[in-house]
Amino acid sequence: GEMQRSVRARVPPLLTDLYQFTMAYAYWRAGRHQEPAVFELFFRDNPFGGGFSLFAGLHDCLLFLRGFRFAADDVEFLRSVLPPTTDPGFFQFLRELDCSGVTLRSVPEGTVVFARVPLMEVEGPLAVVQLLETSLLCLTNYASLVCSNAARFRLAAGSGRQLLEMGLRRAQGPDGGLTASRYSHIGGFDLTSNVQAGFLFGIPVTGTMAHSYVTSFTSLEEVCPQTLVAANSDLAPVDVISLTKGYLRRVCELLGAEPGKIREGELASFLSYAIAYPCNFLPVIDSYSVSCSGLLNFCAVALSLCQLGYKPLGVRLDSGDLCRQSLEVRRVFRFSIADFASLIIVGTNNISEKSITELNSKENEISVVGVGTHLVTCTEQPSLGCVYKLVEVGGRPTMKISEDPEKSTIPGRKAVYRLIDAEGHPFLDLLSLEAEPPPEAGRQLKYFPLGCGDSPASVTPAQVSCLRQEPLCSAAKTRAKVQSSLQTLHPRHKRLQEPDSYTVALSERLHSLVLELQKSCSNDSSFLLAN
Amino acid sequence: GEMQRSVRARVPPLLTDLYQFTMAYAYWRAGRHQEPAVFELFFRDNPFGGGFSLFAGLHDCLLFLRGFRFAADDVEFLRSVLPPTTDPGFFQFLRELDCSGVTLRSVPEGTVVFARVPLMEVEGPLAVVQLLETSLLCLTNYASLVCSNAARFRLAAGSGRQLLEMGLRRAQGPDGGLTASRYSHIGGFDLTSNVQAGFLFGIPVTGTMAHSYVTSFTSLEEVCPQTLVAANSDLAPVDVISLTKGYLRRVCELLGAEPGKIREGELASFLSYAIAYPCNFLPVIDSYSVSCSGLLNFCAVALSLCQLGYKPLGVRLDSGDLCRQSLEVRRVFRFSIADFASLIIVGTNNISEKSITELNSKENEISVVGVGTHLVTCTEQPSLGCVYKLVEVGGRPTMKISEDPEKSTIPGRKAVYRLIDAEGHPFLDLLSLEAEPPPEAGRQLKYFPLGCGDSPASVTPAQVSCLRQEPLCSAAKTRAKVQSSLQTLHPRHKRLQEPDSYTVALSERLHSLVLELQKSCSNDSSFLLAN
Repeated sequence: GEMQRSVRARVPPLLTDLYQFTMAYAYWRAGRHQEPAVFELFFRDNPFGGGFSLFAGLHDCLLFLRGFRFAADDVEFLRSVLPPTTDPGFFQFLRELDCSGVTLRSVPEGTVVFARVPLMEVEGPLAVVQLLETSLLCLTNYASLVCSNAARFRLAAGSGRQLLEMGLRRAQGPDGGLTASRYSHIGGFDLTSNVQAGFLFGIPVTGTMAHSYVTSFTSLEEVCPQTLVAANSDLAPVDVISLTKGYLRRVCELLGAEPGKIREGELASFLSYAIAYPCNFLPVIDSYSVSCSGLLNFCAVALSLCQLGYKPLGVRLDSGDLCRQSLEVRRVFRFSIADFASLIIVGTNNISEKSITELNSKENEISVVGVGTHLVTCTEQPSLGCVYKLVEVGGRPTMKISEDPEKSTIPGRKAVYRLIDAEGHPFLDLLSLEAEPPPEAGRQLKYFPLGCGDSPASVTPAQVSCLRQEPLCSAAKTRAKVQSSLQTLHPRHKRLQEPDSYTVALSERLHSLVLELQKSCSNDSSFLLAN
Repeated sequence: GEMQRSVRARVPPLLTDLYQFTMAYAYWRAGRHQEPAVFELFFRDNPFGGGFSLFAGLHDCLLFLRGFRFAADDVEFLRSVLPPTTDPGFFQFLRELDCSGVTLRSVPEGTVVFARVPLMEVEGPLAVVQLLETSLLCLTNYASLVCSNAARFRLAAGSGRQLLEMGLRRAQGPDGGLTASRYSHIGGFDLTSNVQAGFLFGIPVTGTMAHSYVTSFTSLEEVCPQTLVAANSDLAPVDVISLTKGYLRRVCELLGAEPGKIREGELASFLSYAIAYPCNFLPVIDSYSVSCSGLLNFCAVALSLCQLGYKPLGVRLDSGDLCRQSLEVRRVFRFSIADFASLIIVGTNNISEKSITELNSKENEISVVGVGTHLVTCTEQPSLGCVYKLVEVGGRPTMKISEDPEKSTIPGRKAVYRLIDAEGHPFLDLLSLEAEPPPEAGRQLKYFPLGCGDSPASVTPAQVSCLRQEPLCSAAKTRAKVQSSLQTLHPRHKRLQEPDSYTVALSERLHSLVLELQKSCSNDSSFLLAN
């Protein structure tokens, strides 16, 4: 319902490259448009210098395929941009087109995947599956990239820390931001600041205040109301201003702080917020100076809340050396008048994968890390480079034989098997022809590792799983799949820097097919002599 | 109508960070929500190591403000995520909210702008203008970044070459791709491959065929029909297969090429396309080998088209050394049997700003350059980092005084003037208080350059223009404005690498206000003593 409508509006069938239509027309004109064809979607290199990627975007692809239909004004627009010689019958063909003849086989969303492994196989009438290329790439490229990026942040952060996505303002426009929130969550983030992502996808949303809120206050006179009723009580409202001022003086004494450096406006903003949301007090404490003002004001207000039976949540640090400051904050919390041990410290200062790795190697007390720009823009590598290549047409395997071997494709419809060792770690993805018998656990098999020339190797897998199965599940299940899929991966492939490369290999028969097509290609000129 | 609906669907009022709502609630609870407030939107560093940026996204911001309204289910969702203690009156307040009380003053879209200059000033009720922050940033950050990136590609390419945007598949999802196409065009690109961008924004769309089209053919038997009627004639259809085979043999003789290396499938694909679109023949010629197959097949089909009275358009190169290949292609075109001098050569191989600069410094014959990934993802710097800061509330200027001077803000509502020298080049942007008299042409004025401490300088501008004027115009006018705005910029600021930095300065009175607020800040503790 709702989701489907919104995907249809986001990905109208015109949101594609013009050449898809000129090619579709040429196929139509030659009567080849209904010829059965198979395309594969894959990427050529694991992103971020890592050893793996995660596959995401499948759900959006399925909704796109289900809603794929040209409206009358779409077709009118195409009529205006395609060459005027285009046969009107082609526009009629487009008007009647849908994806009912298209079959999608896919790796399940949220699976750990590797370069060169076909992630989706799209089978259907040649002209139709050609038309789908750009949209399917657009829906999987960034989704997989940001999901992989999020999974790397998760690995870097360890499992003990909560991760908050807060990149909406730095994403590629509104939908870029929504996509980032959705797939960061699937990749392993716990929370988002993006309310619409909470609304549409059920991701837990969080957030309290920005610096502008703090700096909008100058004086305690702006606090209104100035009283708060104690939790679960029928007592009269308490004057929290006086109460807090009293605590502030005690805090200053206890910590030996200079009252002269404390900012009244900051205290007023904290008090106002605490009066509005006494159960949700988590201010940003670095608007002026953490140690000279923010931390002291926080403690004073938090002590007032405690006295009235409310539990403050914690603080946010948004600048400077987060580790050092978090230690200072935690020390003050420990030696404070009340029990502040369970307060959380949120850190949010231009966090990158590198800085989160450093954070993990240093002593610190940060419980929640917020990540924006580096997560959603994938600074280290802002594009995954998925491609969509023709592998079979009219029942005949096709192959692009490029002068650059990296750009050659692997022909034919394939089955993809993941071979698993005795410890349960996957160690090899085997691409074989669909017609071949599958590899069997405990049985030796010969394979040709990709990128290693034509020398075969052999191995006996402890287990074999087929990579394409049960493609659709809920976002929550997909999110769980990401972690379980990563769990089984051997640490040497999971290392964020300089991982061991995972083997992707061809079966013996697929390898023979490649050789055969390469050979046939150098011998192709009889047509010139025929007249 | 259409545009507005689509922007409203793209940017619902929930597409923002949760803390905007918790802050708005705290303001509402304290009775401060209607207090007049002013926010400024600006960025802190020019992107891509350059000396300037372009401002874009204003049009979308205006549509967003016009449509800003909470629907019943938006509010119900907020009720479910905000703390349960939230006063129900707040949700009623949200239900009735719109932007009728908000005034936006802005630099016109498409203007050359510099770091620290306020680009938009948003004035209105405190709670409302706070709620707008994330959406306005989301709509301007990427739009300005990709527009600036496109303008740099334009400067690097020179004015003689056409630029084609083709990044949809690598953008941040569907709307990321649309935004990229729209603002790349405004930034100086001529064409897009994105059909929906043509449909919505009227950008000229282009494209012919991909490698998959070429590799889908194996034999001339697949060409259908095998005949073509000569242009503007009533003659019988001509057998183009025989005609082309004849030309191919002649081309091979003339160029001394080996017929044995020519791919029949490629010739079949070219012929099919030419029969479908005889006036639009521009094939990709590197599917196998440019010199051994693609170029020869192109010449043969193009000669057939010429003989039948059609004009072939040119070729596309998509791999390898584009410069070298373009020279080879052009040489063959020049010495060919027919007049191929006006054929265009399109180059599209992972083009970056660096490679387009190199292209310009080497001999080559490329007439159209297609750019995808590096344009839309802004690889060199995938985020602009615009921020939205409170500068005035309740008539009182506010200032964030950070320990990091880069992160301090400049207080107060401002006028922004651009000072222009006798040659017509802008050389200084002056921020002054709105109440101050404007600087005058021919009259000396004192200013305080930002980031240079407190030492004043003085200058006499030849002309003065006010930066905020006539905010809205058509995309076509905005696109023209980009080029005219860049035209006036002095080359030393326009250099893509290591430009001279442009001066942004404070007026005397604004500078005094900064000093005054900095001073008042270190003296703020009387509230602690009062009881």
